[in-house]
Amino acid sequence: MKTEVMEGLRDVIVANTSICIIDGVEGSLRYRGIDVGEFARHSTYAETAYLLWFGELPTQAQLEKLQNRLVAERELDWGVRKVIQALPKTLQPMEALRTVVSVLPSSDPQANDYHYAANIEKAIRMTAKFPTIVAYYQRHLDDLEFVPPNPELSHAANFLYMLHGQEPTPLEAETMNQTLVLMAEHDFNASTFAARVTASTLSDMYSAITTAVGTLKGPLHGGANQRTMEMMLKIGALENVETYITQELEAKRRIPGFGHRVYRKMADPRAAYFAEKLQALCKEAGDMHWYNMAVKTAQFVGEAKGLYPNVDYFCGPLLYTLGIPMELFTPIFAISRIAGWAAHMIEQYEDNQLLRPLSRYTGELVKEYVPIDARRGTPNPFFGE
Amino acid sequence: MKTEVMEGLRDVIVANTSICIIDGVEGSLRYRGIDVGEFARHSTYAETAYLLWFGELPTQAQLEKLQNRLVAERELDWGVRKVIQALPKTLQPMEALRTVVSVLPSSDPQANDYHYAANIEKAIRMTAKFPTIVAYYQRHLDDLEFVPPNPELSHAANFLYMLHGQEPTPLEAETMNQTLVLMAEHDFNASTFAARVTASTLSDMYSAITTAVGTLKGPLHGGANQRTMEMMLKIGALENVETYITQELEAKRRIPGFGHRVYRKMADPRAAYFAEKLQALCKEAGDMHWYNMAVKTAQFVGEAKGLYPNVDYFCGPLLYTLGIPMELFTPIFAISRIAGWAAHMIEQYEDNQLLRPLSRYTGELVKEYVPIDARRGTPNPFFGE
Repeated sequence: MKTEVMEGLRDVIVANTSICIIDGVEGSLRYRGIDVGEFARHSTYAETAYLLWFGELPTQAQLEKLQNRLVAERELDWGVRKVIQALPKTLQPMEALRTVVSVLPSSDPQANDYHYAANIEKAIRMTAKFPTIVAYYQRHLDDLEFVPPNPELSHAANFLYMLHGQEPTPLEAETMNQTLVLMAEHDFNASTFAARVTASTLSDMYSAITTAVGTLKGPLHGGANQRTMEMMLKIGALENVETYITQELEAKRRIPGFGHRVYRKMADPRAAYFAEKLQALCKEAGDMHWYNMAVKTAQFVGEAKGLYPNVDYFCGPLLYTLGIPMELFTPIFAISRIAGWAAHMIEQYEDNQLLRPLSRYTGELVKEYVPIDARRGTPNPFFGE
Repeated sequence: MKTEVMEGLRDVIVANTSICIIDGVEGSLRYRGIDVGEFARHSTYAETAYLLWFGELPTQAQLEKLQNRLVAERELDWGVRKVIQALPKTLQPMEALRTVVSVLPSSDPQANDYHYAANIEKAIRMTAKFPTIVAYYQRHLDDLEFVPPNPELSHAANFLYMLHGQEPTPLEAETMNQTLVLMAEHDFNASTFAARVTASTLSDMYSAITTAVGTLKGPLHGGANQRTMEMMLKIGALENVETYITQELEAKRRIPGFGHRVYRKMADPRAAYFAEKLQALCKEAGDMHWYNMAVKTAQFVGEAKGLYPNVDYFCGPLLYTLGIPMELFTPIFAISRIAGWAAHMIEQYEDNQLLRPLSRYTGELVKEYVPIDARRGTPNPFFGE
């Protein structure tokens, strides 16, 4: 019996997986063995989801069938729409997404079936509905009518359409597609792992994905794209970059959007694709400001600290340039990651083991139960002497 | 770098803790070092929560202050009640609890504060509100008006009052109190562990507890008290016990309510207290049927398989005798366990480490991205050739 505490489970291998492989030393990320750059250049989100779930690239006919299923599953049932309309507006978008995912089984008769076919169905359902949930809740916050999904539009374009009430330009749609493709999967990160623990009790996939959304919400996991943009807005102008970053580094504060637990010595392979698209978007808008800001800041931080931008860095100003409210940056991460989470759920249920670790007890071993009248009492900051 | 896969994290020690100590060999369970039997005999749920959160037994004055805070926090805000009324009735009670916990931050301005004082506040809030959520959703399912909490009643008695619309007898209240006390905490089980993973990203406590509820829902974790009662109803009469159990054992089916991953060679220390209360309740009702059934079945399974009843075994018929619908048995587990979950959250946030394990990649290492027109295609049961 080992007695060593595996703090943070760092370097503990918890399971076999065949979904994605990260090489932090060479700085590569491959979905089912295929380099993530191929998806950024050639692929759609639907194709990426197909590969993540089935391990093979689809033929044109197979892809069309999946796309049709995703289109058919976009709309939310009446009961779920009613819940969104009842949500208090003080709820953050990530909290709303977490809540609405938790309501989805109300209209799924297979909700508690965790066999392969039912899991594929649920993967399709949730992947199709995530953009709708996020867009509808934002419309609810803004006192606007829901914009029903448009079956003529791609997964990515339709999200922007439901959110803004107007069709995006081809470049905007392509940018959103690339964003969804690049963040779709990243191995056993905390949200995926937490979802696997939930699923390991044979709880249903909606429970597991609710767990994933709530876990992604934590600032040590999601949210860096939002914090990157908040920083850019604070810096404001190119001439302030050096002063601001120098100040932050001197105060030993972390610069958001830099460094990664896995990619330590190389750039995050996803960052360059985001930078490219940010440049193109700014050109289309005729205003290079945020691209120039992002490049100058990255250069300065690179020279000063030797840190590389991670996936969140260019993604922040990119989503901002797409006209997306900053509170939706983490929900968009979820809209993308649902494909990867679902792939992990399918894998987990196929070969399930209850994930139940041990702890080391460091408290009092044996303590007497003193009757209440005989207690001396220990002062308590909340409840007095 | 180790390459061994720690399947199910079995025997992996993941953190230090000082909340509860389980000795599977001697068959003991101690909250902060105090034997769980003391709580069954002498204590209230509020006192148990105090001990779990602060590590010390309260004085009378301290306990009263906590009780007053719990009473003051029982009612749900208007916005949350409105969400319950909007929930589709196809949602199971555990799914409804998971959803409503996820909505609670809407009325908590400290929702995203994970410092000690804010965590204590959230522990009080959630512990106070869990019974109300479960009772209100059941009333919603039954098309009945919500019964607002009665500040004159104890935590346990008030739950039965809100559920049934009438005050319980003293024995019924005492039985519910004992149930809540005995299931309040059990170390790093899957729901507690999953909640810790969620909290480890510094996501908020509502996210973490939402995770816990969704994880407890899984049949490998919660639900055995319900399955025990379903079995008793199936057996129906004393004279059927032997035939039924023999049949089940021959078919190699698990008998619900027996055996435990931790208590392997001894009885679960909580089972005897539940048995005692079941006997008393049946006497009060003037009908010993379910007590006799439970005892005879336990004796027969013990003789045939050498297995001991676990915490869920007598709890099933006990909650049934209290007139509680079987779908609420797992939610009642949650109403109890929230005190322990909250204690673990307080401990986790005090000394946080991101819980992020590794996996072993067993898929294709490098795969080519073949353009869609050139793909041969792999047959797919859902999407054809």
